[in-house]
Amino acid sequence: MKPLEGYKLGFIGLGLMGRPMCRHLHDAGAQLTVHNRSRAAAEQMVQPGIVAAESPAEVASCTEILVLMVSDTPAVEAVLFGTNGVIEGLRSGSLVIDMGTTAAQATREFADRLKRAGADLIDAPVSGGQMGAQDASLSIMAGGEDAAIERARPLFEVLGKHLTHVGGVGAGQVAKAANQIIVGLNIGAVAEALALAECAGVDKAKVREALLGGFAASRVLEVHGCRMIEENFTPGAKVATQHKDLRQALELGASYDLSLPATRLNMNLYRILIEQGEGALDHSALFKLYQEKRTG
Amino acid sequence: MKPLEGYKLGFIGLGLMGRPMCRHLHDAGAQLTVHNRSRAAAEQMVQPGIVAAESPAEVASCTEILVLMVSDTPAVEAVLFGTNGVIEGLRSGSLVIDMGTTAAQATREFADRLKRAGADLIDAPVSGGQMGAQDASLSIMAGGEDAAIERARPLFEVLGKHLTHVGGVGAGQVAKAANQIIVGLNIGAVAEALALAECAGVDKAKVREALLGGFAASRVLEVHGCRMIEENFTPGAKVATQHKDLRQALELGASYDLSLPATRLNMNLYRILIEQGEGALDHSALFKLYQEKRTG
Repeated sequence: MKPLEGYKLGFIGLGLMGRPMCRHLHDAGAQLTVHNRSRAAAEQMVQPGIVAAESPAEVASCTEILVLMVSDTPAVEAVLFGTNGVIEGLRSGSLVIDMGTTAAQATREFADRLKRAGADLIDAPVSGGQMGAQDASLSIMAGGEDAAIERARPLFEVLGKHLTHVGGVGAGQVAKAANQIIVGLNIGAVAEALALAECAGVDKAKVREALLGGFAASRVLEVHGCRMIEENFTPGAKVATQHKDLRQALELGASYDLSLPATRLNMNLYRILIEQGEGALDHSALFKLYQEKRTG
Repeated sequence: MKPLEGYKLGFIGLGLMGRPMCRHLHDAGAQLTVHNRSRAAAEQMVQPGIVAAESPAEVASCTEILVLMVSDTPAVEAVLFGTNGVIEGLRSGSLVIDMGTTAAQATREFADRLKRAGADLIDAPVSGGQMGAQDASLSIMAGGEDAAIERARPLFEVLGKHLTHVGGVGAGQVAKAANQIIVGLNIGAVAEALALAECAGVDKAKVREALLGGFAASRVLEVHGCRMIEENFTPGAKVATQHKDLRQALELGASYDLSLPATRLNMNLYRILIEQGEGALDHSALFKLYQEKRTG
């Protein structure tokens, strides 16, 4: 028997991440009702076992577990509480799983509002990008009550390889903010290191190879380092998304009077890249800032 | 037969790194002549197969391959060319291997001066710290001519696990500068990420665990992240050394008109830590800056 046989799931948000995730849930045997803001993406998913719904409310009315994979905090709020939002069709006892990157503070507030309607929210943002979504190798950082996490576990096992129950509602989003800080700063580190090697006339690929054996080793050096060396900036995760996530992390820090100077500088470097019209490139394109400086 | 049976090696610089490296060479069958600026460290190494010499010149006069593991560029210069320096006892055809972290520009100049005396220099700085020296698991980034690297290879195989011949003389030091940039910035990234988690009331250990499965994974998150969580700042590699290496990397960048803003900020954060009297702690102690801000 397939692991999700008999599950009736909703899925809202069929972007670069959402579509492959949706396909994995379908392959695992779930019956899916899907919705996307622009209807075409939902229509394209339709096949035996997947139906498209007109609105988030309609998705909520015919499912018990509902996955959100939308772009940002305002989009989550609109999907849950806007016109024809989830809240209008929500059945008591439902579980909403927000797998996007949403502000931790807003997540706690959304959970309270859903609780009053008899539903649970858990936050379960992911790391691993489009590649991780396609390979079902996502790393999932979950926040919420034990029972709700256990209820979601069969889905997580289909979508990812590494699930951590970090803490209560919002804790997953705090972990994701921490994740995005590290990813952004590690990309900045590799960019400066490889730019230095290039200027000094040393083979960047050899430097990457040498460094992968020591304390400088990281997933970013492996994956994004390779993209910089090949100058292949097809996303992956976009510059604009990285910038948004860093801003959100800084806002979370500021809410606790914590200043994060390295994160702020990194965000500003990403902003320069956006202002140069490079927001749609992969976040490893931060390297381009250093190439310009050299040729400029 | 032991791998270095019949080798007559010199070893200068018996600090935290040098002592265990020296022991591995001895265990591998080499005959060693050792020297250290403060004589006590050299005397302590003496045993069958290890003799202590009064000066670098004396070491050079009775060995054909000579390893340097001293603290910084001025120390390398003093050992090679100062009073009773290596150059005064150097035999033609000798090989000098500088395994410390020395400025790349100076390395090329030192190699030229030794060449005129009939000797080769290769730069072979390492990553992996004291732990890597003890376990003989160092990552070695070597710069120099092919023949000289091949001559040193049996020693490298005893001392480390991951040898990369990066390029000509100085290329190893360029790779090491790149390594130190990444290590410093990755430590800064983990410090900001874990400080944010702590402020938000989320278990830092859970966050580290969650992040090790995704794009934020790194050796620094594994090793230094653990030190931050346990607040165990016994070095390892010292704050003062990290600061010196970052300064050296920035100087190398500046010599090519390359500015490295994230590296500069990271160096300045390390300088603040030194000014607070914490220069002898492990470089993961950067985390303390964020703890103060919270309680201050």
